[in-house]
Amino acid sequence: MDFDLRAGTAVLERTPQTMRAMLAGLPPAWIDGTEGPDTWSPYVIMGHLIHGERTDWVPRARIILAQGEDRRFVPFDRFAQLREAKQSLGDLLDEFAALRAENLRTLEGWRLTGEQLAWEGEHPELGRVTLRQLLATWVAHDLGHIAQTARVMAKQYREAVGPWRAYLPVMDR
Amino acid sequence: MDFDLRAGTAVLERTPQTMRAMLAGLPPAWIDGTEGPDTWSPYVIMGHLIHGERTDWVPRARIILAQGEDRRFVPFDRFAQLREAKQSLGDLLDEFAALRAENLRTLEGWRLTGEQLAWEGEHPELGRVTLRQLLATWVAHDLGHIAQTARVMAKQYREAVGPWRAYLPVMDR
Repeated sequence: MDFDLRAGTAVLERTPQTMRAMLAGLPPAWIDGTEGPDTWSPYVIMGHLIHGERTDWVPRARIILAQGEDRRFVPFDRFAQLREAKQSLGDLLDEFAALRAENLRTLEGWRLTGEQLAWEGEHPELGRVTLRQLLATWVAHDLGHIAQTARVMAKQYREAVGPWRAYLPVMDR
Repeated sequence: MDFDLRAGTAVLERTPQTMRAMLAGLPPAWIDGTEGPDTWSPYVIMGHLIHGERTDWVPRARIILAQGEDRRFVPFDRFAQLREAKQSLGDLLDEFAALRAENLRTLEGWRLTGEQLAWEGEHPELGRVTLRQLLATWVAHDLGHIAQTARVMAKQYREAVGPWRAYLPVMDR
């Protein structure tokens, strides 16, 4: 499937409500469970998504669109959320929804052309990447973390399901 | 995490709204994409969830609760949805939500005790399983299919993300 601005945006605008539907109001054991040491809970994943809205997707798109001399992205800190002050999960869900809505208004305001989608920036490790690839990655990154959230939650019942574990591939992914 | 009726139910009651938030109104390319031959699209996953509400979780719990002579479950047909008449995705989302709500009313009406949760039935392949394990599996099965849905969607952009694929483990799970 090729990246299409409208179809991609359709996913981006659904992610806040998906995370809210899945997580809001759940008992803490679901929100704070992980897959083991140094893996992320749904709570930490929400912080990571917020950090991406602030420092990754739109700021990098701006660098590409400016077409300046230096098109190198600022490295993204995948662990920033682990150092941030603790907010409630409800606050994180609200903050993510607000930041995402604002970023989608910015994206829409650009009225990007096919030509612009082919413009390039420089990823600090991956090298030259296009705006189209950046936006497709924004979408896939959301979906990856929705999948991760559900997987992390499922694993909390790895023992509780007893022999059914053999029929639940999510337990061992 | 041990199975807890209230915490487990909290997930079960959220799944219809999670699937709706993630899928309702998306362009067909997202709804019908798969991971390759003989794998499921989000549309097929919705049909499978509906079939589970009809023939798996609550009917099996009833067999256990009856504590009759024969406690053997009817085998679950994992592919039934592939033979069913095509409905719109919106219809499937509505049908799943209605069936799930009805099943949760049934579950709540049973006012299950800890003793009953330890009662057993006989799975056609796995042998003796408890009601507690059956209910934990209902929860984990939901979460596994939420994760699968997001993963299948992410993979539609496997090429579109270009070099970022190396940073997106969901693409190769």
